[in-house]
Amino acid sequence: MSNPHVTRLTLEYDGREFAGWATQPGRRTIQQELERALAVVLRRPVTVTVAGRTDAGVHALAQVASYVGEPVPAHKLNALLPDDVAVLDARPALPGFSARHDATSRAYRYRLLTRRSRSAHERGRALHWSHPLDRDALDGCAAALVGTHDFTAFTPTSSAHVLFQREVCAAAWRTDGDLLIFEIEADAFMRNMNRVLIGTMLEVGGGQRPLDDFEALLEGAPRSRAGKTAPPHGLYLVGVGYDGRRVLPIR
Amino acid sequence: MSNPHVTRLTLEYDGREFAGWATQPGRRTIQQELERALAVVLRRPVTVTVAGRTDAGVHALAQVASYVGEPVPAHKLNALLPDDVAVLDARPALPGFSARHDATSRAYRYRLLTRRSRSAHERGRALHWSHPLDRDALDGCAAALVGTHDFTAFTPTSSAHVLFQREVCAAAWRTDGDLLIFEIEADAFMRNMNRVLIGTMLEVGGGQRPLDDFEALLEGAPRSRAGKTAPPHGLYLVGVGYDGRRVLPIR
Repeated sequence: MSNPHVTRLTLEYDGREFAGWATQPGRRTIQQELERALAVVLRRPVTVTVAGRTDAGVHALAQVASYVGEPVPAHKLNALLPDDVAVLDARPALPGFSARHDATSRAYRYRLLTRRSRSAHERGRALHWSHPLDRDALDGCAAALVGTHDFTAFTPTSSAHVLFQREVCAAAWRTDGDLLIFEIEADAFMRNMNRVLIGTMLEVGGGQRPLDDFEALLEGAPRSRAGKTAPPHGLYLVGVGYDGRRVLPIR
Repeated sequence: MSNPHVTRLTLEYDGREFAGWATQPGRRTIQQELERALAVVLRRPVTVTVAGRTDAGVHALAQVASYVGEPVPAHKLNALLPDDVAVLDARPALPGFSARHDATSRAYRYRLLTRRSRSAHERGRALHWSHPLDRDALDGCAAALVGTHDFTAFTPTSSAHVLFQREVCAAAWRTDGDLLIFEIEADAFMRNMNRVLIGTMLEVGGGQRPLDDFEALLEGAPRSRAGKTAPPHGLYLVGVGYDGRRVLPIR
């Protein structure tokens, strides 16, 4: 008889010491650490499904994962997890719930430290960017992103994606002291998509690429026409939306 | 002939991997790392004087240090320093300037993460405190701290201090999301003073100690009557004031 219970977990992690979310033999990943802790508490092997498979070095503030089985107290999992992963919440979900398939949006944040000297506190937590940036140009990029576009230019040609169209429901830049922060929410993201978007927008903000060139990339241009892939350590999965509810308060 | 130049450095550090500021044989300290980098750039041994000698695990956002010698570009020092220390500024000071003796105030911050689950992002950067706290009681402690008091109760009996009176010009608690933050500025602090203050205020906020007992401690009570020494990792040296200029915007 199949287990009727499904549990939904919300968790955060510091991606610096992880080879990303997904299990890889011989590498330290969040999935492996989480499944190991769950197996200890539930006394059986558990496989988790995740909303956003983050890459090596990428952080999460409120990742969502699910597994077939009953909820276990978050503090029990946290006692078994390493200190760079923490379960914030574990609660029953409806039968058949999948953190991945039921997600209607994902929200990401990219943090740039825009001052002259590097920071002891933001190392591995923000990209240090000491070159001048034109905020109007960046805002123009964000405005262009909202809507449905073909993001072929923003994912490696080797990606296994079949459909390259994604719908962006919110995208905006904001300033917080020395930090320049980009936030974006879309139905789904392709591999490296956020990082190539950032790398390309930094070229527009730095004056090396005109805004209309960026806009043209959103119509299915080849990967070779977009910019570099920004480093992973500035990127955070902020949260996951279900049932059409948005994560970000912005448009 | 003595060197007429004095340089003032502003620096930040993440205290987690350091045995504190001051040089200790066989331990990794901020002073040693900084003096090593300065010696490379200036091609001679350099001794730095610091405004606030922070303990192991304590962080700094804008520590001030000085040395006799000409300024060197911050980026040159940063290229030689490990990534958990960063020089923010290096500028000429008046002859005879001492970061320590000329400082008229020091400001510190203590960060408490007041939610149920621990955090992957705040580990080593805030004290996780999941017990309830009475904010009015904490605010009462902060109000009591402002003024001149005898802080004998808040430093180890083994301390080498001669005078135990310090003048607090500002002290306040504030909330920032899940964080509860205490900030204090005084002419000077004694060894462990901030950490014993926090440990004792947490007892008042938790209902284990009445506010008037805390107030009575400020009149030269023995160390044994105050509370525990809070862990170092929630503590930050925020900045140093000179010529009577305050660091904190609060009273």
